[in-house]
Amino acid sequence: MANAIILVSCPDQKGITAEITNFIYRSNGNIEHADQHIDKETNTFFMRIEWSLDGFVLNRESISIEFSKVAKKFSMSWNLYFSDYTPNVAIFVSKHLHCLEDLLIRHKYQEFHCNIPLIISNHPCAQDIAKSFNIKFKEFYIDKSNKQIQEKNQLGLLQQEKIDLIVLARYTQIFTKSFVSHFPNKIINIHHSFLPAFPGKKPYHRAFDKGVKIIGATSHYVIEELDCGPIIEQNTVRTSHRDSLNDLIQKGKDLEKSVFNKAVKLHLQRKILVYNNKTVIFD
Amino acid sequence: MANAIILVSCPDQKGITAEITNFIYRSNGNIEHADQHIDKETNTFFMRIEWSLDGFVLNRESISIEFSKVAKKFSMSWNLYFSDYTPNVAIFVSKHLHCLEDLLIRHKYQEFHCNIPLIISNHPCAQDIAKSFNIKFKEFYIDKSNKQIQEKNQLGLLQQEKIDLIVLARYTQIFTKSFVSHFPNKIINIHHSFLPAFPGKKPYHRAFDKGVKIIGATSHYVIEELDCGPIIEQNTVRTSHRDSLNDLIQKGKDLEKSVFNKAVKLHLQRKILVYNNKTVIFD
Amino acid sequence: MANAIILVSCPDQKGITAEITNFIYRSNGNIEHADQHIDKETNTFFMRIEWSLDGFVLNRESISIEFSKVAKKFSMSWNLYFSDYTPNVAIFVSKHLHCLEDLLIRHKYQEFHCNIPLIISNHPCAQDIAKSFNIKFKEFYIDKSNKQIQEKNQLGLLQQEKIDLIVLARYTQIFTKSFVSHFPNKIINIHHSFLPAFPGKKPYHRAFDKGVKIIGATSHYVIEELDCGPIIEQNTVRTSHRDSLNDLIQKGKDLEKSVFNKAVKLHLQRKILVYNNKTVIFD
Amino acid sequence: MANAIILVSCPDQKGITAEITNFIYRSNGNIEHADQHIDKETNTFFMRIEWSLDGFVLNRESISIEFSKVAKKFSMSWNLYFSDYTPNVAIFVSKHLHCLEDLLIRHKYQEFHCNIPLIISNHPCAQDIAKSFNIKFKEFYIDKSNKQIQEKNQLGLLQQEKIDLIVLARYTQIFTKSFVSHFPNKIINIHHSFLPAFPGKKPYHRAFDKGVKIIGATSHYVIEELDCGPIIEQNTVRTSHRDSLNDLIQKGKDLEKSVFNKAVKLHLQRKILVYNNKTVIFD
Repeated sequence: MANAIILVSCPDQKGITAEITNFIYRSNGNIEHADQHIDKETNTFFMRIEWSLDGFVLNRESISIEFSKVAKKFSMSWNLYFSDYTPNVAIFVSKHLHCLEDLLIRHKYQEFHCNIPLIISNHPCAQDIAKSFNIKFKEFYIDKSNKQIQEKNQLGLLQQEKIDLIVLARYTQIFTKSFVSHFPNKIINIHHSFLPAFPGKKPYHRAFDKGVKIIGATSHYVIEELDCGPIIEQNTVRTSHRDSLNDLIQKGKDLEKSVFNKAVKLHLQRKILVYNNKTVIFD
Repeated sequence: MANAIILVSCPDQKGITAEITNFIYRSNGNIEHADQHIDKETNTFFMRIEWSLDGFVLNRESISIEFSKVAKKFSMSWNLYFSDYTPNVAIFVSKHLHCLEDLLIRHKYQEFHCNIPLIISNHPCAQDIAKSFNIKFKEFYIDKSNKQIQEKNQLGLLQQEKIDLIVLARYTQIFTKSFVSHFPNKIINIHHSFLPAFPGKKPYHRAFDKGVKIIGATSHYVIEELDCGPIIEQNTVRTSHRDSLNDLIQKGKDLEKSVFNKAVKLHLQRKILVYNNKTVIFD
Repeated sequence: MANAIILVSCPDQKGITAEITNFIYRSNGNIEHADQHIDKETNTFFMRIEWSLDGFVLNRESISIEFSKVAKKFSMSWNLYFSDYTPNVAIFVSKHLHCLEDLLIRHKYQEFHCNIPLIISNHPCAQDIAKSFNIKFKEFYIDKSNKQIQEKNQLGLLQQEKIDLIVLARYTQIFTKSFVSHFPNKIINIHHSFLPAFPGKKPYHRAFDKGVKIIGATSHYVIEELDCGPIIEQNTVRTSHRDSLNDLIQKGKDLEKSVFNKAVKLHLQRKILVYNNKTVIFD
Repeated sequence: MANAIILVSCPDQKGITAEITNFIYRSNGNIEHADQHIDKETNTFFMRIEWSLDGFVLNRESISIEFSKVAKKFSMSWNLYFSDYTPNVAIFVSKHLHCLEDLLIRHKYQEFHCNIPLIISNHPCAQDIAKSFNIKFKEFYIDKSNKQIQEKNQLGLLQQEKIDLIVLARYTQIFTKSFVSHFPNKIINIHHSFLPAFPGKKPYHRAFDKGVKIIGATSHYVIEELDCGPIIEQNTVRTSHRDSLNDLIQKGKDLEKSVFNKAVKLHLQRKILVYNNKTVIFD
């Protein structure tokens, strides 16, 4: 039996939690998870609430209609999800394939609740992996002259496959503002540094030259500005002078896989709320 | 202005959260934190809810009386706390003083919301530290023949100082069942291993002999069985063959301080619920 | 151009390092890595030294003959390796396949310097993975009545494939003393707990019941006593009351893969010395 | 009985290790620790070697004279230390006193092999702590008009107290180039971020605004450019949206203490070599 999940943010005031939990209780729902957070600086209320639809007296359309009345009263931004919907995810990748392959194997072991119908790349090298997992692979060669037209072609394909979420598994092309605007908080990137340190190109080389004693990886939603979107997950690992540049890259790969996988999982579990270019993670 | 905090556990059923949040909303309370957890194995509901008493129409006695009606309806175990009450903490210590001193310095920097009126030891060596922090120090020499009488004397002193919480900062004596029964889930110990590995004496020596690559520390509530109470917090740190036994002990000291301090803080913030000899931590 | 690597242990005395480094220098070797360790408790000297054979005047047999004279002088235990020899590794696995698959993918990405010619299992379920990586798969059904004969068959196969190292990627059978004696410090196991906590069966279940706040994984050499061999690598990850048993198992899988992979890599890089049922890791 | 320690760096070539170890062996020294590292990019050899002077036939002046012949042959940069010399450390501090107090308590527990004869501040607030530890406290009020003269006064005092190492325990003044040049690789700072992220002022505020999921601390040698010197030690800790700015600052304090303490200890143990604005840590 499916669950319903609502993510809410609104200006804080008295009675919000009571109103939401009553809404569920009145229609015979059993709350399985409820987590709220108040940002005192901005006086903002955040909530994630999940309840079983077993015995719930409202059907899915009615939930939306009825909850919109609650939402209006408190000027809420909100989203409603059902746990039995399986989102469609497209993976973008370039030449480094470790994050791609890690996602696909985890998907095979049913760690992610999603379909992966499509892999897009600006290089041919992921083709074999895509084939071995029976996933449609589409190469879009991109240079300065054709970026806009290729993005348009990509958008067409994404629409056709009803893609809900794009994940960038070490994809080296930078999207235009226009492309990003079609997927607000629906593109997850993995960057191979602990942002805001080392944004942009060759972060491991720069970390090596700097002589840092920790390296990191950051998974974030993509916004127009490069490597500046809301951070979902970060982690770090110790390095030493004994690590060559190649050692850093090797250590970093494991970190990238782990951070990226966690970020994608949190998104698919509807545990992320974005505000003020930051994230609230209901974990 | 103070907050009220209620910790609740009960068999799960529909409507509990709605009932609790309504109780608060009806009397004009503003919920500042609400966190719930359901243990699916035992079908148990847990909640920590904190609301501002600013404008709340019930006085403190009435809160207790009125909430007991809610509690009865759902067969709740529950505790009510007020954030402006300052608990009284007694520290027990033996010869290793680092955890004691760390607590006292953090207390000086106002990291803990408590009074520390009393330090008890079975050795005289903490006397100077106690004096430098202006805290009453009381030595109880203990051997096989006098343990029961000394515990009785200690209990008298603890009662006199209205002690709410006992923290064992590397205290080497084992309490009798009778003593423990006076402070259920109100005695916090720090043990210098990652329990259940190396319970009892000389855990660093045994970790060294075993050649482990991580050592740990565990803070837990004290129950009758030695080193078996509900675990509040644990952490580990890497070691290597280069670490001598003394290096292990030194690394371990920092770990003990950090784990112990976190456990005591969680207790004072009323963020711990105990059930089935395990803890739910509302962090 | 290859390197030579010597691992040495012996009673400590003056002049060992000078003698070894002179041995290399006299024959025109350039030391690339040298790391020594002295265990003060047992007064034991340990060294790993690696030098380039580029321009070295002794051939491989002569190195062995000449170094044995040095070794005799100091009563050394020692092993000589050449970096251009590629060891043969056999993987044993049962029903949980995540560690197996992780090893194979890392091997594909050339993280390990070894051949993997053989996968052995007591179940058929790893057959497809073996096939997809073009590795010989051999099933040995084992029950109480046939263990000795099956181990004999396995030994024959291992000999035939010239196996240097056995890695147990969640293999559930316990080897007999006789089998283990054929591969001293040449069988690496991954156990899904932070040993010495939770040896034996179902460690995640027991960790869950105990309510620990960290879980761990341990990779060790196999000796006759179950889960008691020299520990090579361990790591831990935080858990909380929110983690169900399945969450623990899922978190643990990532940990197992990471710890196991690191232990196997250290062995293949000839960075491990065993003494007193503990390991010296020259990392 | 004391040990001698030599730290060496030079262009790599054959025979360096043999020459150094022979130098020690010829005069009847027993090597207790030897660790070398070769940076392949710059073809640079680094070594830390420590031997017992028990029975060593050269006196201290002769060691220096004789080793300089070895050093000349290989164009070495080198430093010679004796373990029975106790370095003099001055602590600079401003208004945040947690790092200062942590150092002093660890010093009391004999974790550091040094004297601490002097605390310097641009504020009076550390005076009481200095007094309670019986350490000379000297306030130098600094504004734009008097910085040069005050630094000159400070230098006089440092000279008078024969200070070997300056540690900046959250000192907010920026030294002039001239001041720094008197203490090359002899001033250790603690910065409250994972550099190169958030150099300069208010790193916690900026980390909070950015919404990072990890915060860090960095201890480094001071060079002319602010927060750009060779990094000695870094560490990070997880944060979440639940952490207020004050929570970040609190978590960060523990991290600062731990990272700073480790860096100071490494320096006093003569385990740090600086090259190319990076550090080699012989741990």
